[in-house]
Formats: sequence, structure tokens, C-alpha cells
Amino acid sequence: MARIVMKFGGTSVGDCDRIKNVARRVKKEFEAGNQVAVVVSAMSGVTNQLVDYCRQIAPLHDAREYDVVVSTGEQVTIGLLAIALRELGLRARSWTGWQVPIRTDDAHGKARIESIETEELLAAMEGGQIAVVAGFQGIGPENRITTLGRGGSDTSAVALAAALDADRCDIYTDVDGVYTTDPRIVVKARKLDKISYEEMLELASVGAKVLQTRSVEMAMKHRVRVQVLSSFEEKPGTLVCDEDEIVEKELVSGIAYSRDEAKITVIKVPDRPGIAASVFGPLADANVNVDMIVQNVSEDGRFTDLTFTVSRADFDRAIALLNEKKGELGYERLMTDNNVVKVSVIGMGMRSHAGVAQKMFSTLAEKGINIQVISTSEIKVSVLLGEDYTELAVRALHSAYGLDAQ
Amino acid sequence: MARIVMKFGGTSVGDCDRIKNVARRVKKEFEAGNQVAVVVSAMSGVTNQLVDYCRQIAPLHDAREYDVVVSTGEQVTIGLLAIALRELGLRARSWTGWQVPIRTDDAHGKARIESIETEELLAAMEGGQIAVVAGFQGIGPENRITTLGRGGSDTSAVALAAALDADRCDIYTDVDGVYTTDPRIVVKARKLDKISYEEMLELASVGAKVLQTRSVEMAMKHRVRVQVLSSFEEKPGTLVCDEDEIVEKELVSGIAYSRDEAKITVIKVPDRPGIAASVFGPLADANVNVDMIVQNVSEDGRFTDLTFTVSRADFDRAIALLNEKKGELGYERLMTDNNVVKVSVIGMGMRSHAGVAQKMFSTLAEKGINIQVISTSEIKVSVLLGEDYTELAVRALHSAYGLDAQ
Repeated sequence: MARIVMKFGGTSVGDCDRIKNVARRVKKEFEAGNQVAVVVSAMSGVTNQLVDYCRQIAPLHDAREYDVVVSTGEQVTIGLLAIALRELGLRARSWTGWQVPIRTDDAHGKARIESIETEELLAAMEGGQIAVVAGFQGIGPENRITTLGRGGSDTSAVALAAALDADRCDIYTDVDGVYTTDPRIVVKARKLDKISYEEMLELASVGAKVLQTRSVEMAMKHRVRVQVLSSFEEKPGTLVCDEDEIVEKELVSGIAYSRDEAKITVIKVPDRPGIAASVFGPLADANVNVDMIVQNVSEDGRFTDLTFTVSRADFDRAIALLNEKKGELGYERLMTDNNVVKVSVIGMGMRSHAGVAQKMFSTLAEKGINIQVISTSEIKVSVLLGEDYTELAVRALHSAYGLDAQ
Repeated sequence: MARIVMKFGGTSVGDCDRIKNVARRVKKEFEAGNQVAVVVSAMSGVTNQLVDYCRQIAPLHDAREYDVVVSTGEQVTIGLLAIALRELGLRARSWTGWQVPIRTDDAHGKARIESIETEELLAAMEGGQIAVVAGFQGIGPENRITTLGRGGSDTSAVALAAALDADRCDIYTDVDGVYTTDPRIVVKARKLDKISYEEMLELASVGAKVLQTRSVEMAMKHRVRVQVLSSFEEKPGTLVCDEDEIVEKELVSGIAYSRDEAKITVIKVPDRPGIAASVFGPLADANVNVDMIVQNVSEDGRFTDLTFTVSRADFDRAIALLNEKKGELGYERLMTDNNVVKVSVIGMGMRSHAGVAQKMFSTLAEKGINIQVISTSEIKVSVLLGEDYTELAVRALHSAYGLDAQ
């Protein structure tokens, strides 16, 4: 007998028929002899409607009251799913965040789970009851409802799986697994059977939006085995797990890209100690998230050029901030470009194999694609390219690393 | 400084603009120097949608899960109203039923309030915060969400006013007060300035659906002064209060009618002790609510006729039950009619004045209206008439008792 947490997102519970369908999936898992907890999101569209109500009333609304409003979406789904499960003859009950309780900090709208008290839940599950738990919500230190931020239901599911010491956390979604790259761009993209936490983190954070980044971090920390699979088809998905569980390791497991990039180059900034801090300090204070940073050695030892990327939403704000500080920083001018894309090659294998980066550069060179910025980490090489080259680059790299499906 | 509970129903909070409007009304009351708690219903249409979801998934759904689902309607409204109040520069916070907490029994779907713990709420209000409380909901003995049944927000408001020892409970609704009769039938119907609890109870239970009956009972028990007024116009409404507070008592304060009546006569039932019990026992067991009951003395001491009314929804079931028991009860046949209306004359004054009933009978006789059944209580005379005579009877009585507006 295993203990399993199943999580269903908004499209999987989008209407009453789909909720009944979810109930049948849960029944099958339960009747296979497993203890089952189910975590659900709001029915698709509901959260947006609730957020819109809040905005209509006040553009800058109180985050605590926002949480009271938007947390109702998941509460509706747990009640309906419990009803559907009971209709199938199963014992089931719903649990709101405060009933479990799932304790969080008081950062309303983007709270972090601090602990989950599982005694009552476990007793119910061990007694043969299916626990239907509201995702995305918890209870703060002052007994007020909190939410985890958009996509937080994945985090709820993984945290619950960790707290329950579950054998697996199955995340049902509208894709059937994690692919070597975006199948909309590369027809020959392959579904991966297994992927390590580390690779999944890099894939998720650079644009393959299957699992929320925070939920993968949490899974990695607590060694929760997470399976991503389709709620509409009955076939195995992709298991996100410890590297050790992956027998046949691939050199490179995926090609990711992100169009949400904008490039800023600070030209001829005085090359003195502390200059990077004085450029990025004000950006950090203004909550502008800086991604890739490149600084070359200066030729004459007096001036250097500093290039970095920000998300497109922060682009104008970053430029305005730097213009404000021009006198203080003493640079000559800014060069900016938001028609760029970040393409990344990801794989655990590159830690032990040389030449992975070199293959990337030569492949792009063969296609005549100019690399603007390069940045590397232990298991990833990322390059910044002109946005027009996105598809060409991703397809060429997918083939070059032998990822194409047969 | 007074302490006031304000309650707004579904149409008053039907969309974001109306919620902003409610916030302005609350602000005015607060800035007049009062401590204010606001009780709100779900936005109009929302509860019906949620109930419909439950029914789509299972016609006979678990009442505990139903409560989890439908209680979200009020939770959305409290969050939105708190946001709207804060947008007006006021300090406000929302309170769900379990946060207050409002403790109820475990009769899910139609729970009764057992106690309200007001310490936290009062401390907040005394500190200048406006308390926005979810109507219709509470928390049961096992920490599960309960609801009070349709219209329960009125009861929540009155119970809260009693627990807070409030000076007044203002119920804002889509009518501007309690009328001497239905203004759709009698153009000259008058709005009452004041009405006693007892009269209001009779008016509400016979069809003038302004306040939920249970809320009036509770107001009477705890002597809560309840004002019914319009949420769309700014003028005084009708105060429901203790008889002693009403200086100029009217002989008759209103004419009510109810079309939800069906008449059943059991013909030639043996006239022996216990026969009433054996007729009404099975109906009570089957949850059929019997209203008017008339039994005349029998002419020969052997047989009698027993007439009573039930609501139209219970009509067929009541007939089926009596047919089942025909042999046992030994009656000759049933005579049934669901084209009837109950018209009632209500007034505290009739306790001390004779002739009120007589005036009713003579007025109806003058119009050639046949009275089928008569029943009286201390402050009410009700008659059962053919349904076609409803308007004629109500208008004639309204004039006869001098209730027409000048």
C-alpha cells in the first residue's frame, strides 16, 4: 500500500463533468489499495474573475482581504469534489487550509508554507477516508486566510506530500509530461520518462512552465517524487526525482527558451571597484530582477561595458532608474534591446562531460546565428539571441544534442 | 455613540458598483460617530450558481460539503466590502463565520446559531475598526463550516446585534420598509413607521416576505430593534420593535395573504377520541407542515369532517399519505382544492377591541366572497378564500380597516 497525493489544476476541474472525471481517477487510485489525498485548484476562470472583482473595487487592494476573496475558488472545488467522490460510494471529506491546518507566514498573496499539521488528516486517511485539500491557501499567524500566489497549488501538493511522507505526488495537468523542448516549436520533441529536480528547476525557470518553480525547489529539498501527467489521458507522465533514480542519464535533457528578456548595456562605465554594486543596488531596491550579467575586462583599465537582462515588464523601469543615476554612475550612454530571447541547454551530464557548451556555439554558428551574451551554470548554458532566431536555434540545438524523437 | 449592525442582502451587493455604494452608506453611519458591524449576503445569483453546481454533481449531496461550497458566496462579499471600505480611507476587516466565531449546531444546511463569541470583534470595533461579517454561515461543533439555510443572513445580523448588545440592527433590502399590505395589489398601501415583533411575525409568516421569520423571532426574544430600509434610497424605513415603543397603536396594522395554500377535507371520519392525532401524526412524520385546521362538532356524534391546509409543495404527498391510511382511518373520501388563498388581518389592537373579526366577515360578505375556513389567533384573523378573490378581498379589507394612504 502506498500513500499518494494527487493534484488537479484548474482546467482539470473546469466544470462539473470534469470534476466527476477527476473523482473517477481518484477512485481508481484508491481502489488500487492506496491512501489518497487530493489537492485541487479553483475551477478555471474563477480565480481571474475574483481577482478582477478586487481590482474593480480598488486597484491597490489590501492583500489580506484579497486572500479572503480569492481563496474561495479552491473552497468551492474541494466541496464539489468531495460530493462527487461520495456519489461514487467513497468516503471523502473536504479540508480548507485553516482546517488542516496548513500554516504559513503572513506574506498575504504570496505566503510561504511553514508547517502542515497532519495528525487529523492522517487519522482520516488511515481510516479509509479520501482527503480533499484546498490548494493555494493556508492560515497565517493571526488566524487569517493566506494564499501562496498564482500557481501555488503545485506547492501545496508537494508540501502536503512531504508532510504526509507520501510515496509520490502526482500532478495532473493539461500536458502529459515534461518534454525535451516546446513541442509547438519542435515537432520531434520527446517526452522524458524521468528528469532530475535540478534539471526540472532550470527547465521551469527558463520557460517550460509545467510546474511552479517553488514547488520543484520544495520537492528537491524534501526528496518528494513528483510525477507530471495528463488529467485527460491515462498514461504515465514524467517523474521528477533524485538524480540517483535515473539510470540512463542523458548528456543534455532539454532545450528551453524564454522570450521574457530585455537587454541593457551600460556603455563606458568607469572601471573601478564597487561599480557593479552601484549599478545593481538601485535596481534590486526597486525590485527589478536582473538575470544574466556580463562584464568584460576593460581594454584600457579605465572604462568597461556592463550588459545585463531584465524581464520585459521591468524594462522601462530599469532604464528610467539608470537614467536617474547617470551623473552618479558616470557612464557614457545606455544601449537597450528588448527583441531578444534566451535559449538554454540543460543537462546533469554536462558536469562530467566537456564540450557541451562548445557544441552549442558551433551549432549556432553553423546556422549563422549571432550570440549576444553567454552565461553558464553547473548544469546549464544560456545564450542571448535576436528574438527572430528563436525557432531556428531551438530546432538546431534539439537535433545537435540527439534529442529528436525517432 | 451608538453601536449599530447594518445588514445588506444579495441585490444590495449585486456587483462591484453596488458594493462601493454600500461602503459609502457604511462610511456615513461610522462618521456619525457610531460603532459599526456590517453583515452581508452573497452577491445576487452567486448562491444559486453554487447550489446548481452541487446538484449537477449529485442530486442528493452531502450537506456538510454543500455548506463548504455555498458559504464561499458570503466570503467573497466580505472581502470585497472590506476592500471598498479601506479604499474610502476607513479601517475595516472581514470576518468569516469561523473567525468570529459564530457557533452553530451541526444541522448542516439549516444550522441554528448557538453562541457568538464577540470579544475579538468588540475589541476591534472599540478600536475604531469596522467589522465586516459573513452572514448565513457559522462553524459547527466539529470545526466544520455550517450554513443557516436560505435567507439566513437576516438571522446572522439579528443574532450579532443581540450578542453585541447593539442599539439597532438595520436591514437594508430592495424594499423601503414594511407596508400595510402588498403594494403590487393595493396602490394605496402605506409604509409603517413602526411595527411590533408579534405583528411582524404574523406578516412575515403569511406572505409579506421582508424579513426571514426566524430573524424576527430572534429579535423578539432578545429585544433587538430592527429597522427595515432601502439600500437604494436614503430615507427612514420601518422599525420593528417592542410594542411599548409604539405610541400610536393601530387597531389593525396590515393585511397579508399567502397563495401557497392547498386545502384538504377528510369527509366522514369517525368522530372518536384520538382521530386528529391519527390523521396528523403520519403527516408530521413525513415532514408535511399543516397550517390551518378546522374540525366542527359532528351532528350525529358518529362522523365528522376535518379540514386543513398544507403548502402547495406538500399537497400531492399529503393526499398520497392519506390514501395509504384510508382503511386505518376509516373516512369516506377526501375533498381537495389547491386554488385557495389565505388572507389575514393582523393587529395588536384586536386583543383589546372586539369586532375586528366581525368587520372582516361583513366586508367579505358585502363583496360576495365566500369564506371557506376561518382560523384566529390573538392578533390575527385568517380566512381561506377562492384564489380568484385575492386582490378583491385584500383591497376591500385594506379600505375597511382605514389603512389606505391619503
